[in-house]
Amino acid sequence: MNDCPFCNNEISNAVFASSTNFSAVYNIAPVFPGHSLIIPQKHIGSLLSLPENQLSEMIIFAQKVTVLLLDVFKSDGYNWSIQEGAAAGQSVSHLHLHIVPRLNNDLQNPGDWYPLVHKTTDEILDSFDREKLNPEEICIIVSRLRQEAKIAGIF
Amino acid sequence: MNDCPFCNNEISNAVFASSTNFSAVYNIAPVFPGHSLIIPQKHIGSLLSLPENQLSEMIIFAQKVTVLLLDVFKSDGYNWSIQEGAAAGQSVSHLHLHIVPRLNNDLQNPGDWYPLVHKTTDEILDSFDREKLNPEEICIIVSRLRQEAKIAGIF
Repeated sequence: MNDCPFCNNEISNAVFASSTNFSAVYNIAPVFPGHSLIIPQKHIGSLLSLPENQLSEMIIFAQKVTVLLLDVFKSDGYNWSIQEGAAAGQSVSHLHLHIVPRLNNDLQNPGDWYPLVHKTTDEILDSFDREKLNPEEICIIVSRLRQEAKIAGIF
Repeated sequence: MNDCPFCNNEISNAVFASSTNFSAVYNIAPVFPGHSLIIPQKHIGSLLSLPENQLSEMIIFAQKVTVLLLDVFKSDGYNWSIQEGAAAGQSVSHLHLHIVPRLNNDLQNPGDWYPLVHKTTDEILDSFDREKLNPEEICIIVSRLRQEAKIAGIF
């Protein structure tokens, strides 16, 4: 799993919340401020292989993280998205749920977020199409989110 | 809620599986064969307002429905998507999770599914941009899915 960006140390600075088996990771090349991922801590490829207790843990954790992000980023809505399998556009074979906080009028057509996500953040560390945040920017955002996550009991 | 397409009788012919509080509905204007929605049976707008037991029920049910769809449609992958709030592109204010089974090479770029979903199936009964299935086609597909759902213990 050395070539999996979610299984090595590349993301440790971007983790801001955790449950027993899942982590919330700030996307260092976010489509919009707040764009984060929920990932299992172990290298699990498919949501369909998760046992019921972990499915429950994942969605309850994802709900809490979404509430936190909408609060911190003063959002008006959000998108959740999973793509599983190359046919569906998955490029990193480690299960990940995108959470994308949205603001009114952040795009002329609200539906246009997805091509942006797809192009850029299946590979969390990509920098081909979008600018990555620099380490100082990441540190400031992740510190704030960790603080809020502690208050919410998920860090 | 009379103007909500998920709260009136318009969709009853397209429901093919249920849990205690959720239903699986075949999208009568599917982006790809198998495109379905998981919806709460009551008019609930936000996933963020669901209590933990219903979140668990929803994702466990959605996993079972996805397994069923991938089997019936011989799929190679799938997309899940939720948009919540007008800012995120939600047009029907009744919580709904899109499940879109995918085949290898169903699109030149696998990520191009989302603009199609967004344009057409937030309003399950839309027929502005895509052709709707006729009642006979719906009946054949939904009957097959109900049969499989009975075997899987979700109908």
